[in-house]
Amino acid sequence: MHVVIVYDVGIERLDAVRHVLKKYLTWIQNSAFEGEITAGKLEEVRLLVSQVIDKEKDSVVVYAVNNPSWLEKKVWGREKGSTDNVL
Amino acid sequence: MHVVIVYDVGIERLDAVRHVLKKYLTWIQNSAFEGEITAGKLEEVRLLVSQVIDKEKDSVVVYAVNNPSWLEKKVWGREKGSTDNVL
Repeated sequence: MHVVIVYDVGIERLDAVRHVLKKYLTWIQNSAFEGEITAGKLEEVRLLVSQVIDKEKDSVVVYAVNNPSWLEKKVWGREKGSTDNVL
Repeated sequence: MHVVIVYDVGIERLDAVRHVLKKYLTWIQNSAFEGEITAGKLEEVRLLVSQVIDKEKDSVVVYAVNNPSWLEKKVWGREKGSTDNVL
């Protein structure tokens, strides 16, 4: 499946969340990663992220489509993921 | 169509971007809005956002699916959009 993951986590936990996500997905911008991933790998991501976030305060939202062609992507302004260094 | 919009913009332009997006979509978390929108309204959003972002520095990414049932959403941790005040 193809996923987009956006996160809103406390600054002290940002590095840990990004460290997990960048092992599996592509960095898009400040608070978003995306990429192709299997259901099994996504469950790995969920478990690892669950270990580092504060579930009362932090939010991680996963949008998934089974067929990547269903998801149209447009960039307004700068396409950061392709030009900036990954965190 | 159903869209998810994520943005990474300079702090001095954040309020202006959010001001546009919240007129059309639902706030999900710090840097993301989502909702149903027509192609015409999305073009309005694009024009308004283009007026307030710095296109050399800021990035706004729009993910769109034609059928909302194609997009599966999961929340890990806190579901901010439903419980917190919109910005």
